[in-house]
Amino acid sequence: MAIRLGDNRYGKAESRLVRVVRDGARHEVRDLTVSSSLRGDFDDAHLTGDQANVLPTDTQKNTVYAFAKEHGVGAAEEFALLLARHFVDDVAPVSSAQVRVEEARWDRATVDGTPHDHTFVRSGSETRTAVVTAYSGGAHVVSGLTGLVVLKSTGSEFKDFLVDDLTTLAPTDDRVLATSLTARWRWSAVPSDGYDAAYDEIRALLVSRFGSLHSLALQQSLWEMGRTVLAARADVAELRMSAPNKHHYLVDLAPFGLDNPGEVFVAGDRPYGLIEVVVERDDEEPAPDAWRDLPGFV
Amino acid sequence: MAIRLGDNRYGKAESRLVRVVRDGARHEVRDLTVSSSLRGDFDDAHLTGDQANVLPTDTQKNTVYAFAKEHGVGAAEEFALLLARHFVDDVAPVSSAQVRVEEARWDRATVDGTPHDHTFVRSGSETRTAVVTAYSGGAHVVSGLTGLVVLKSTGSEFKDFLVDDLTTLAPTDDRVLATSLTARWRWSAVPSDGYDAAYDEIRALLVSRFGSLHSLALQQSLWEMGRTVLAARADVAELRMSAPNKHHYLVDLAPFGLDNPGEVFVAGDRPYGLIEVVVERDDEEPAPDAWRDLPGFV
Amino acid sequence: MAIRLGDNRYGKAESRLVRVVRDGARHEVRDLTVSSSLRGDFDDAHLTGDQANVLPTDTQKNTVYAFAKEHGVGAAEEFALLLARHFVDDVAPVSSAQVRVEEARWDRATVDGTPHDHTFVRSGSETRTAVVTAYSGGAHVVSGLTGLVVLKSTGSEFKDFLVDDLTTLAPTDDRVLATSLTARWRWSAVPSDGYDAAYDEIRALLVSRFGSLHSLALQQSLWEMGRTVLAARADVAELRMSAPNKHHYLVDLAPFGLDNPGEVFVAGDRPYGLIEVVVERDDEEPAPDAWRDLPGFV
Amino acid sequence: MAIRLGDNRYGKAESRLVRVVRDGARHEVRDLTVSSSLRGDFDDAHLTGDQANVLPTDTQKNTVYAFAKEHGVGAAEEFALLLARHFVDDVAPVSSAQVRVEEARWDRATVDGTPHDHTFVRSGSETRTAVVTAYSGGAHVVSGLTGLVVLKSTGSEFKDFLVDDLTTLAPTDDRVLATSLTARWRWSAVPSDGYDAAYDEIRALLVSRFGSLHSLALQQSLWEMGRTVLAARADVAELRMSAPNKHHYLVDLAPFGLDNPGEVFVAGDRPYGLIEVVVERDDEEPAPDAWRDLPGFV
Repeated sequence: MAIRLGDNRYGKAESRLVRVVRDGARHEVRDLTVSSSLRGDFDDAHLTGDQANVLPTDTQKNTVYAFAKEHGVGAAEEFALLLARHFVDDVAPVSSAQVRVEEARWDRATVDGTPHDHTFVRSGSETRTAVVTAYSGGAHVVSGLTGLVVLKSTGSEFKDFLVDDLTTLAPTDDRVLATSLTARWRWSAVPSDGYDAAYDEIRALLVSRFGSLHSLALQQSLWEMGRTVLAARADVAELRMSAPNKHHYLVDLAPFGLDNPGEVFVAGDRPYGLIEVVVERDDEEPAPDAWRDLPGFV
Repeated sequence: MAIRLGDNRYGKAESRLVRVVRDGARHEVRDLTVSSSLRGDFDDAHLTGDQANVLPTDTQKNTVYAFAKEHGVGAAEEFALLLARHFVDDVAPVSSAQVRVEEARWDRATVDGTPHDHTFVRSGSETRTAVVTAYSGGAHVVSGLTGLVVLKSTGSEFKDFLVDDLTTLAPTDDRVLATSLTARWRWSAVPSDGYDAAYDEIRALLVSRFGSLHSLALQQSLWEMGRTVLAARADVAELRMSAPNKHHYLVDLAPFGLDNPGEVFVAGDRPYGLIEVVVERDDEEPAPDAWRDLPGFV
Repeated sequence: MAIRLGDNRYGKAESRLVRVVRDGARHEVRDLTVSSSLRGDFDDAHLTGDQANVLPTDTQKNTVYAFAKEHGVGAAEEFALLLARHFVDDVAPVSSAQVRVEEARWDRATVDGTPHDHTFVRSGSETRTAVVTAYSGGAHVVSGLTGLVVLKSTGSEFKDFLVDDLTTLAPTDDRVLATSLTARWRWSAVPSDGYDAAYDEIRALLVSRFGSLHSLALQQSLWEMGRTVLAARADVAELRMSAPNKHHYLVDLAPFGLDNPGEVFVAGDRPYGLIEVVVERDDEEPAPDAWRDLPGFV
Repeated sequence: MAIRLGDNRYGKAESRLVRVVRDGARHEVRDLTVSSSLRGDFDDAHLTGDQANVLPTDTQKNTVYAFAKEHGVGAAEEFALLLARHFVDDVAPVSSAQVRVEEARWDRATVDGTPHDHTFVRSGSETRTAVVTAYSGGAHVVSGLTGLVVLKSTGSEFKDFLVDDLTTLAPTDDRVLATSLTARWRWSAVPSDGYDAAYDEIRALLVSRFGSLHSLALQQSLWEMGRTVLAARADVAELRMSAPNKHHYLVDLAPFGLDNPGEVFVAGDRPYGLIEVVVERDDEEPAPDAWRDLPGFV
């Protein structure tokens, strides 16, 4: 029963790139953290230590910066695709390349009442993400976000659940529902409105449906949120979500002679519920390569 | 040379409180992390283990939640003052109390195009802070923020500095200037517009002056930012800032035959410059107790 | 092209359990963070909000604590298996259950020169991990560790690599090699020496081979480390590793008239190389379920 | 009431230095994170933006690396003192300098049963610290540690405490006591056994006394730990501690028909008690400059 090398990949993780567009007085900023992972003919690098096929991870980093100058940086998905295609097409031993981008978003700062040309404020709690997996003959594009923190102070129930000998939870028809959403969606086509506009629409749809639904469980909220996105956008093939149930425990104030009708809560850190859901289409072919190696369920 | 007990204090750190105001359909949410530290007659608790004077930290936590119901939670400063006064006035062994609050801010979510009554999205990058130090006969109120991340893509120089044998830095008259600002300001009077409105104004002034100044150094930016706040608000006695210089290094693309006129940057993690400044008034008495035990310079 | 619910699971993440064994004066401590995820007949929970099949995540947490008392806590793998089997066997709608454990390790403290009966010091940098995936008729057991930080100050080369137009890295035949290892290994049989002893042996083998190998690349080191484990232990079916190349950059001291023959380094944070490798056996059947949903490559 | 510049300082934070001593086959490694802060004649840097007196923080970083080569790196305290003295003595505008060091400790790895010459494993949970504040004519040296995590599974009580209307805590005469200790101690003389040996002794004394004391409160434990260090070492002028009470809550298993005599605990994250104590000598002059600007109480 011989021992052998199995699946393997390597790359440069978390190259920090800030690209300033300064064609005129009004600058634009894109702030990306870029990681690349290459698969291919790298057996000898492991088995004998022969590095002849190995493009240094330092070069992968250089490529990020050189491409940012040569080609500019538009939507994260487009920049990731450019890089991934280059590694597959131009580096002989590479058979597939995954490029992952995390984008920090900046709002134009208000200076003396006016949006400023070259001053920016870091915005929001969430990070925009893009993952492109390219291979000879094609590529998968997955967009997403992580750390979108939302909360409903009412309009959420949890009751009529399965009860066993170890169940002590009381059912409730009014609780706080909060999560820090991670979502990723795979494209079946390039969005005609562009990845940036599409991101803004999908983010708005997710928040909107989270808010409008009277929720019977976080599972139901996630399903409805995902269904809403797929219904609105025919170019999204599937959407995956991972959502911690950030529990808000109602404080028992009875020992102090006080009632507490949904007003005072402890926000818990750990443990937390964790709900993970895929929303997809009936006749869509699965695309396992698009999801390979990504962290956890999403 | 006998060994003795010196300064000491104790309390409950990081009680997580979410207070929902639900007087009508339109809810409000305040999300605070509250810490208390008490000084007083606690020598025996250390020297003999006698806890007769020690109000449990668990009780301090209970107090946070009970007060949140009984008195409501308005501005962080007011809630902190209420708690700190209680510990000093109502708990016999306590001679002074410090209450520290970190407030996470939530924006009302847009649902189907309209601001929603009970759905919220975690906003911005910064945390609002309040520290109240109460003692018999008075109290200091210090407001602030931390993690306000701002960036200028131009309008910043650094040159004509001191050069010694170990200096290799090239002077520049155009660089990216970015920081994650921590600021605290001490009040000489209760702000007549209220702590919430005052916070919004001071945050706006800090961002605005950061943006409007053509900066010769982060030191100059901080001074100008602080001066602007004190000029606008007679009720602010002093303002302290701690600001990492989040370096953005211009990438050398010459090896690839590319120039890089301020377009492609590496955002560095460590090391970073760290600038710390107090802006104060000529005839203001110092208030060392207000700043005691706070983390670092600010 | 109808929209449908795809794969989904739910559970309780990061229940913090400390189990004290106090049969006599000499105590033992096990410190686990336990997460569970259940798959099964949960469509209605999403589609209609009907929770009749949903065992609350709160109950899953209760189960962790009740089982810790009833059955005790031995090796993390055994405790995880017990929990996972219970969810599959005793909760009707559940078809498979994954239980993930992170174990913090404590050393017995030395007090007045002697190992103490009931005082402990948190040990080492690494966390021990166990993941059990149970289903009707079987289970996979995966053991592992994360955060094992190791460094070689010499005995490491990187040269004769692939060079393209964007390569600027200089080859080296003497560098610092450091990583923070994450490794997981899947068992084909219950280890006859028990999971605890097996863990200690495998950890020692990984460190030992990292040290003894004159390394031509981190890829080679990882292959040799994995091969060594599989050669020593017939009960390990495969081993997966994810290893950041924690770069140590030689500082250029020439501007100060100083040479630097491998003595003064900057330890970089980001970016970092990331090498991921599977070492397996020729005739072993793959066990994809064992690796499903785990974070990233390992 | 004119606005003026108050106290200010600037420097380079968190330069990551790994120094390899390779005089023979048996290497040594010191792994330091170094921060410097300078005070002096820097008013113009703020008020007019004139940087003529400002030694760039980049130069301060260069100094760390150049000194590491020129002078070697022994004990963190000695290296910090060397740097701090240089900034005060050799850079004209500087009146005082604080140098802060965090040291990560590495154990020699066991390779094939033998301690290896050039392979190391990151050790323990704690970080060793040193802070030197130098000025014209003198310097303060403060040593310390942070993140030393210790736990007693019995031998700890908390009862007979102050009870008010908001107190619900039950007294206990047997609980788990755990903390993550931060301690700093100021030297009145250079330790004759050297800073490294002294560190090991003080760390051992702290752990030993934590373990040997039957504790009536964390306050008592800290006092006894500090007293023990000062009694053993005449060269330590004072010792400051900050210690979170890492609560371990006994799980109520009664709903499941199980008792729980100190066996099954939830380890809580937040909130936590926080105890801060100074242990000092009767006739020692205070040294406020030694503690200025350090984070919080310690």
